[in-house]
Amino acid sequence: MSNSFGKLFKVSTFGESHGPAIGGVIDGCPPGIALDLEAIQKELDRRKPGQSKIVTQRKEPDAVKFHSGIFEGKTTGASIGFVIENTNQKSHDYSHIAKTYRPSHADYTYDKKYEGNRDYRGGGRTSARETANWVVGGAVAKQVIPNIQINAYTSAIGTISVDTPYQELDFNAIETNIARCPDPVKAEEMIDYVSKIKKQGDTVGGVVTCVVQNVSVGLGEPVFNKLHAALGQAMLSINAVKGFEYGSGFEGAAMRGSDHNDIFNSDGSTKSNHSGGIQGGISNGMDIYFKVAFKPVATLIQKQMTIDSEGNEVEMMGKGRHDPCVVPRAIPIVEAMTAMVLADFVMLNNATKF
Amino acid sequence: MSNSFGKLFKVSTFGESHGPAIGGVIDGCPPGIALDLEAIQKELDRRKPGQSKIVTQRKEPDAVKFHSGIFEGKTTGASIGFVIENTNQKSHDYSHIAKTYRPSHADYTYDKKYEGNRDYRGGGRTSARETANWVVGGAVAKQVIPNIQINAYTSAIGTISVDTPYQELDFNAIETNIARCPDPVKAEEMIDYVSKIKKQGDTVGGVVTCVVQNVSVGLGEPVFNKLHAALGQAMLSINAVKGFEYGSGFEGAAMRGSDHNDIFNSDGSTKSNHSGGIQGGISNGMDIYFKVAFKPVATLIQKQMTIDSEGNEVEMMGKGRHDPCVVPRAIPIVEAMTAMVLADFVMLNNATKF
Amino acid sequence: MSNSFGKLFKVSTFGESHGPAIGGVIDGCPPGIALDLEAIQKELDRRKPGQSKIVTQRKEPDAVKFHSGIFEGKTTGASIGFVIENTNQKSHDYSHIAKTYRPSHADYTYDKKYEGNRDYRGGGRTSARETANWVVGGAVAKQVIPNIQINAYTSAIGTISVDTPYQELDFNAIETNIARCPDPVKAEEMIDYVSKIKKQGDTVGGVVTCVVQNVSVGLGEPVFNKLHAALGQAMLSINAVKGFEYGSGFEGAAMRGSDHNDIFNSDGSTKSNHSGGIQGGISNGMDIYFKVAFKPVATLIQKQMTIDSEGNEVEMMGKGRHDPCVVPRAIPIVEAMTAMVLADFVMLNNATKF
Amino acid sequence: MSNSFGKLFKVSTFGESHGPAIGGVIDGCPPGIALDLEAIQKELDRRKPGQSKIVTQRKEPDAVKFHSGIFEGKTTGASIGFVIENTNQKSHDYSHIAKTYRPSHADYTYDKKYEGNRDYRGGGRTSARETANWVVGGAVAKQVIPNIQINAYTSAIGTISVDTPYQELDFNAIETNIARCPDPVKAEEMIDYVSKIKKQGDTVGGVVTCVVQNVSVGLGEPVFNKLHAALGQAMLSINAVKGFEYGSGFEGAAMRGSDHNDIFNSDGSTKSNHSGGIQGGISNGMDIYFKVAFKPVATLIQKQMTIDSEGNEVEMMGKGRHDPCVVPRAIPIVEAMTAMVLADFVMLNNATKF
Repeated sequence: MSNSFGKLFKVSTFGESHGPAIGGVIDGCPPGIALDLEAIQKELDRRKPGQSKIVTQRKEPDAVKFHSGIFEGKTTGASIGFVIENTNQKSHDYSHIAKTYRPSHADYTYDKKYEGNRDYRGGGRTSARETANWVVGGAVAKQVIPNIQINAYTSAIGTISVDTPYQELDFNAIETNIARCPDPVKAEEMIDYVSKIKKQGDTVGGVVTCVVQNVSVGLGEPVFNKLHAALGQAMLSINAVKGFEYGSGFEGAAMRGSDHNDIFNSDGSTKSNHSGGIQGGISNGMDIYFKVAFKPVATLIQKQMTIDSEGNEVEMMGKGRHDPCVVPRAIPIVEAMTAMVLADFVMLNNATKF
Repeated sequence: MSNSFGKLFKVSTFGESHGPAIGGVIDGCPPGIALDLEAIQKELDRRKPGQSKIVTQRKEPDAVKFHSGIFEGKTTGASIGFVIENTNQKSHDYSHIAKTYRPSHADYTYDKKYEGNRDYRGGGRTSARETANWVVGGAVAKQVIPNIQINAYTSAIGTISVDTPYQELDFNAIETNIARCPDPVKAEEMIDYVSKIKKQGDTVGGVVTCVVQNVSVGLGEPVFNKLHAALGQAMLSINAVKGFEYGSGFEGAAMRGSDHNDIFNSDGSTKSNHSGGIQGGISNGMDIYFKVAFKPVATLIQKQMTIDSEGNEVEMMGKGRHDPCVVPRAIPIVEAMTAMVLADFVMLNNATKF
Repeated sequence: MSNSFGKLFKVSTFGESHGPAIGGVIDGCPPGIALDLEAIQKELDRRKPGQSKIVTQRKEPDAVKFHSGIFEGKTTGASIGFVIENTNQKSHDYSHIAKTYRPSHADYTYDKKYEGNRDYRGGGRTSARETANWVVGGAVAKQVIPNIQINAYTSAIGTISVDTPYQELDFNAIETNIARCPDPVKAEEMIDYVSKIKKQGDTVGGVVTCVVQNVSVGLGEPVFNKLHAALGQAMLSINAVKGFEYGSGFEGAAMRGSDHNDIFNSDGSTKSNHSGGIQGGISNGMDIYFKVAFKPVATLIQKQMTIDSEGNEVEMMGKGRHDPCVVPRAIPIVEAMTAMVLADFVMLNNATKF
Repeated sequence: MSNSFGKLFKVSTFGESHGPAIGGVIDGCPPGIALDLEAIQKELDRRKPGQSKIVTQRKEPDAVKFHSGIFEGKTTGASIGFVIENTNQKSHDYSHIAKTYRPSHADYTYDKKYEGNRDYRGGGRTSARETANWVVGGAVAKQVIPNIQINAYTSAIGTISVDTPYQELDFNAIETNIARCPDPVKAEEMIDYVSKIKKQGDTVGGVVTCVVQNVSVGLGEPVFNKLHAALGQAMLSINAVKGFEYGSGFEGAAMRGSDHNDIFNSDGSTKSNHSGGIQGGISNGMDIYFKVAFKPVATLIQKQMTIDSEGNEVEMMGKGRHDPCVVPRAIPIVEAMTAMVLADFVMLNNATKF
């Protein structure tokens, strides 16, 4: 009942990692946009498995096919159907989990909720493969709001974190290393650390920072559709996310008002930006920035104790090709969800202008 | 366009702090519930201003009147209309902000978004007074799901934070002090600190921890209505909230999978609970717990520089009776939003059972 | 779960005829509209009971009070809360139906659906009193779209029907008689007929025709939110409505395409208008017109056999002051629902314009 | 923005007749249903073109492929993605309408609404081909509510109409003739008439009657989601529909209350059924029946005057293979939309039962 995201710019998705295909329907895309299909595929390539030594070694082309809504190169305002075929599913890899609940996965909760009806292969609907659909939606959304810049990057992996404020980082450096970290020294440390962790069959979490620039004043809807609440909901929808903070975040909770308040310049901009570009749920024209915490991947290439569906304790070990750390591949996903939220709010904001 | 919260258990609200009344419509409440109206008023009393020396000294009874949906003491399944009159508005207090944008308030963003149409008195629609409506909705929701226990408490004010895990705290102690902190030593420190801050005309932020117990397995809807994403969206809707994390949260991002995974017991419960009671967006029967970060209140009883609507720099100082710290009064609000989310998910989960 | 109407311009309502008040929340009203409150009250007066000898003789002022969303005479973009007090409820009138199901009312279905929880006084939530809320919402909506003219009128009562096409009628004549029929000869016949029926303790149905003029091209959303489908859903929401047709309607079903097709003029207007101003679910700039069928009021001042909640056959007779025919009072309701639909579609259409 | 239908049982669709495929996402289907895929294909075969001499002679297999949501033969509760490939599009057939607006089609309104961005081939998104998606959704819905019987049939074509009440008709006869009319004499007349009309290059409208049996008491949600209003909205979404009435419909508007009221039997059933199985928007356990009016197909194989996008008057003539009357192929579409509405209401009704 909840496979749709967005209010006016809306994507409805389907698909399990081991079915024939995943895909979705993008509804509400404005007409007349000359869609850059290569740009969309490029976003998928940033997310796809097998792109570097620190991510899963599965190889999937993740080629998106559009079925509708585009005519003579432009969007028509009609719903845009798309499909990404699953070309690399290996069902036999998953036989060991047919009746076993992997620790800290959703096997147990899905099995209980859906009364034993569960596609256990590759996590079924809970597979992060689903996020390829979101990247398609987000890549279209980015073209709906071309003036807004969205840059996400890896700001922490394990205990290695970037302390430099985003203003002092070069976003052009993000894609120059496989950690997607714009601080080249930290990037190197992160890559080494993930490589080491991977050899141990272990995994590690991390943090993504996202910065949204050139947003006009007025996006966000009071009182239950605040811009930051929608961004939070979007980020918390991403697999493995455990936390979201924007602007001063949890650190702001320890501050005094006299230090925290953002004093105005005469043009309406502010001298500091603890508000994170959002006041009262509405963008104020300053940079929007937020952090997203990802837990370590639950699938380990180590033996773990767990239980089967009868409650028997069994030993299991992850097989196959898993990410030791999701963060580098999560960067385009964070950006995609952000873009869909913003496109939606631009359209909501337009609705009452006449 | 967004003054409604929830999908099946839904509350739609209205009201500014200086209009005649605030209120709302609760839609989707099941029939046959013998509503305890005193319990509802008691929740409002926990939120109301003037209840202690460390909160605003405004006095408002916040008496809720129900207009519909209840007959012979029971809910009928019809929508429940309610109103809380504003008895203590002093419009003259706000004349100094008619054309001035208070730093880190929503004055500027509302003025721009709504093209100069803005009830500047008391923050208008952005006033935290709105949260009284939510407390009514939440108090009704609590009675829809009486088996679920929801306990929120102050876990930090400024840099004073409770390090004891919630399992070792006595929730009965929460209401025994005005900080609403179940650790009596920390509570004392917090109260002293807020008192001091208040004397300086300053404010301070804090953190609320919320624990939800006795939740059955299966609440939450994949993939865009995950239980924790809905909770996050709910919490981020509360005024002054800057961050949300559940389970291991941001700390979990620094961990390894081998430490983070929650190993099952044979009954499906888990030995640890880094998952925070939610796996794959669906409750697993363990305690759900999360933290919510509140920034310091923006209104200071100090001089600050700011601008007016013409862009002139002006000096201003907060007047009247403001909270030096919102956290103690935010406790019932956090609980209320949590209760509405859970009631909604119980109903969504029921929908496919037949 | 369904006490809200509209997507962007949305009204959420509450109230039973014998509670203290009815009311609602209007969400999504654009800012900056200088609301004419007298015009709103005037619409309520057109709907209110007791206004003529052919409608119910109940006397209710139906005075609306706005609680929010309006500041210094203009809408602010905030949700607009409103309340209409019930001043004339006489609960003792309804004791005879506490445990008896009136034929062709909703007593039986509500009692079963809500498991015996039912406000039986005056029909509870099913009372046509609820439509006063809609008239408020519609009267605000009319001011959101001031260029669009909406005129509804009585086109049939019983077997007396107006055969003159609407183009040849003078809409200014609608309010000149208590039947609200712009054909003065037919109006007289209708008034006589209803008076006669009323004396017999009987009731009669009728038809309302509604004409919407000066609608721009492009309102309506494919494929499940077609303009005529939304209008149909709106009309079928009104108590006692049994049918809806637009343009050529049921008569069109008997026609040939060569007679039915509307041939274009060079400016995009059409020579005929069997389409009723809507093609493919989208307005084409021609007049929109539709008919709404109302069944006879179910409450008779005659003896009828019925059953009680135990299944015993009992004789009952309506008491009090009921409408012999709802159609004259339904005119402002039809207009109100039409206005809300159109305001919503104007806003939906705006959303993708940027 | 409106390519989704339903609240809990929801289908989101895409596709134009001349793109590579149409399809959709079914969200909210309960888990554990052993889907009969042949039954689904059979419904599509009832709708597909080329099935008889009185419908379009286009040949399309309309084979549905499911991509997700079904595992080991059963639904899993996950969203169900499906695709129907377009195998028979002939784009060259449509070159004559690239810049010409066909009378009484949606060419003009789409062109204006979407600012010239329009897939003119085969009507693009407005093609009745879209209804194949609905038939898939409806065929799944039928299996969600297997106890409810839904039978639609042709009750009029042009001026030839079935006067026999549905209770005296044999629904098993519906599929025995190509008119899908259970009255064999009228069926013959209809077939002859459509054949004649077709030879003239003309088209004709008609009426579909739908009867829903074995519905439990209590489906439908007050006040803006009444069962009949949802059915009306569903029917009015179908291409070419001009009117909807249920129970006594427009005829009921001419009746007196003393004739129209449905008197109860002691078991809660009623002696007559002018209510059409719905009272106050909620099913009462009696048969639900309604009529749907379809206008004549707009595409004629005759010369007609029209205009092009520059406003020049031009002569045009339909080409290719069009339906002379949509009604026989509309039968499964009416049933499909009905099934989706009912499945949705069963789930909505379940939500508050606990």
